[in-house]
Amino acid sequence: MKAIAEVFSQGEEVVTGQVVDSNAAWLSQRLVELGFSVTRHTAVGDKLDDLVALVREIAGRADCCVCTGGLGPTVDDLTAEAVSIAADLPLVLDEQALSHIERYYANRRRVMPAANRKQAYLPRGAVRIDNPVGTAPGFALQIGRCWFAFLPGVPMEMKTLFADVGWQLEQRFRLLPDRLVMLRSVGIGESAIQQALSEVNLPAGVQLGFRAAPDEVQTKLLFPGDFPFADVLVLVESVRMAIGDCVFAIDGLEGVAGGDLLTVIDRALPADSRVAILETASGGRLAAECQSYAWLDSTLVCRDAAQAGRQLEVSTENEPLELVAQRLAESLQARGADLALVQLYRGSLDDYRNRDAAIVLYNGLLSPAGWYGKQHTLAGTATTKQTQSAWLTLDLLRRYLQQLCL
Amino acid sequence: MKAIAEVFSQGEEVVTGQVVDSNAAWLSQRLVELGFSVTRHTAVGDKLDDLVALVREIAGRADCCVCTGGLGPTVDDLTAEAVSIAADLPLVLDEQALSHIERYYANRRRVMPAANRKQAYLPRGAVRIDNPVGTAPGFALQIGRCWFAFLPGVPMEMKTLFADVGWQLEQRFRLLPDRLVMLRSVGIGESAIQQALSEVNLPAGVQLGFRAAPDEVQTKLLFPGDFPFADVLVLVESVRMAIGDCVFAIDGLEGVAGGDLLTVIDRALPADSRVAILETASGGRLAAECQSYAWLDSTLVCRDAAQAGRQLEVSTENEPLELVAQRLAESLQARGADLALVQLYRGSLDDYRNRDAAIVLYNGLLSPAGWYGKQHTLAGTATTKQTQSAWLTLDLLRRYLQQLCL
Repeated sequence: MKAIAEVFSQGEEVVTGQVVDSNAAWLSQRLVELGFSVTRHTAVGDKLDDLVALVREIAGRADCCVCTGGLGPTVDDLTAEAVSIAADLPLVLDEQALSHIERYYANRRRVMPAANRKQAYLPRGAVRIDNPVGTAPGFALQIGRCWFAFLPGVPMEMKTLFADVGWQLEQRFRLLPDRLVMLRSVGIGESAIQQALSEVNLPAGVQLGFRAAPDEVQTKLLFPGDFPFADVLVLVESVRMAIGDCVFAIDGLEGVAGGDLLTVIDRALPADSRVAILETASGGRLAAECQSYAWLDSTLVCRDAAQAGRQLEVSTENEPLELVAQRLAESLQARGADLALVQLYRGSLDDYRNRDAAIVLYNGLLSPAGWYGKQHTLAGTATTKQTQSAWLTLDLLRRYLQQLCL
Repeated sequence: MKAIAEVFSQGEEVVTGQVVDSNAAWLSQRLVELGFSVTRHTAVGDKLDDLVALVREIAGRADCCVCTGGLGPTVDDLTAEAVSIAADLPLVLDEQALSHIERYYANRRRVMPAANRKQAYLPRGAVRIDNPVGTAPGFALQIGRCWFAFLPGVPMEMKTLFADVGWQLEQRFRLLPDRLVMLRSVGIGESAIQQALSEVNLPAGVQLGFRAAPDEVQTKLLFPGDFPFADVLVLVESVRMAIGDCVFAIDGLEGVAGGDLLTVIDRALPADSRVAILETASGGRLAAECQSYAWLDSTLVCRDAAQAGRQLEVSTENEPLELVAQRLAESLQARGADLALVQLYRGSLDDYRNRDAAIVLYNGLLSPAGWYGKQHTLAGTATTKQTQSAWLTLDLLRRYLQQLCL
């Protein structure tokens, strides 16, 4: 049974939505990596009663809690006060904390404002966590069932102080981290994967999860830390077989190359390759995603095959889409590319914009080894069509590089 | 006394920190704008007991709660089940929801996987919230003190369905919303705005806030609901003057046209205009942002001026950047565009990728009225440079259309 951890963020700017709470996500990842089961995030504003109530709740519910924010010098920084009330411990001056803060200002040739003295008062018995990058010291203490660590809300300070917290957690808890294996796929939906996996039976203790991102669908298998590696490999392989060749990479297995679709493509492309692209449905999104890769040649973004034909001097009049795509690819390749990736689609601009209407996406790749084409049907908002077509076109390149086009 | 709202996010990916919960921040902003006091965010994973406990907690504590996530077709989507247990209401098949989901697949020429049938089961008595952009319907119901709305976790779907929720909230609660006036700007940073506003003095009760989005910086003025409109107008005008002509639109004022940069441009462009684009630094991002507008002609995406010169048969050898840009624009315009927008930059690919290095962005616009150029210095990650250059280039078109180029 894993130790239960929670994350708690304080700040009016968080609860009112003025800032996105990225601290909570960062801390959760660290806690999961350490081997905790993170069960809850909570954010409250700068209200003393809410803070006291929340500390008491968590003290009775979790084994460990990392809190951020509310350690500043101003009147709305109430964390220490709330903890002293919730834990019924007086706030006492920590001389070392005070001298740290005074030194912080001295190093900057400035006098410490009186307001900062408040930051040196910690609940009696709390372990101070020194802050080398700011004025607010953090502190840690046991309240009820839960060991709390309180850190500043400024992300850079929070991350710096967490190094110390992580070390303390490893001392205090007997932790056994899980293994997360993630199968990454393009061109198949979450529910289709779910159905494909109905055959595969998961051993008890192995958790299955999914995440649909714009650029891929992730199938996640969470194995207990003591799950035999050989059995991990067998199960992952059966899941991969069930999903099929839409899986382009697997993360979290030693000796297996993972990464996102572009990383996989970049790894597989021969050095000095030049890929020229014509995109229509993705409207420039495809080029934008590939911009940082040296293999990307110039890209032509057109509304439709006719406009592309005019730009590339290819006749597109009453020709089948595949033949037009092939001619356009030849014209692109003639400009000095090794690979020409052409994306066309069948459907009006109204179909494209209408979330309920479908377009037929046609992707073609002209390579030294020949011509490969693949067709898909896309629906959804214009943004969805734009994004999905970008990744489906790139996936044809991935399939060619992984020899799946034959 | 304002009604109390909470936000609740479900998902293992949130609680384990694999995704940052931006939904919670977005929803909190909307709820604050509607006139609620948002007191708490909570995120829990895909665990039935935790979900049931949380729904019961909130039912006794808040007047309104918007929840995201857990409405998908897969085994780890447990929201409806948790609600039915917490509220002691059976899950019943909603025929209309089912036909919606079936139609969603029919539109994509696909058969609905059996797994999706689960999404059509809602707690008895819940009000269905139709989902025009995905399979998962949302639903709303009163539990104890609190009116709950459950929405999908996919941000685009969540935002679409919230329109309906906002309307329902306005019917159910007597809200005195604050007035949010938002000045939208491009080409000036948050801290520069803050400095410019140090002169302007804000009346008590008016809150000033900022949001730096990739495409714009928003300066927000939150006025109490009963703040006199005449005084609102005076203050907003003084803020607009202080920020200057980087302000491209103002939202939240009757009689003043607002909208994002593309909406402003689209409104100002003469009918049947054709805008041809050459982009380098934004790498396709600019075309992708404009894709849905009929005035967008074909776009050429190149790595640098030299590559563009080869494509457009313009000599770029040892010529000043501005002259090269002008020649490239003439070549683009010659292909039948009314306006030619050219984006070039000075700096190596390494500079581009190095977050600490700066590039010099040069934007040029060739119009019937003449040639306009504008130069900017950009730093930050490659993604930041890509995004900012797209919007700065578009902003030159906006400035031309708002007669600021003279």
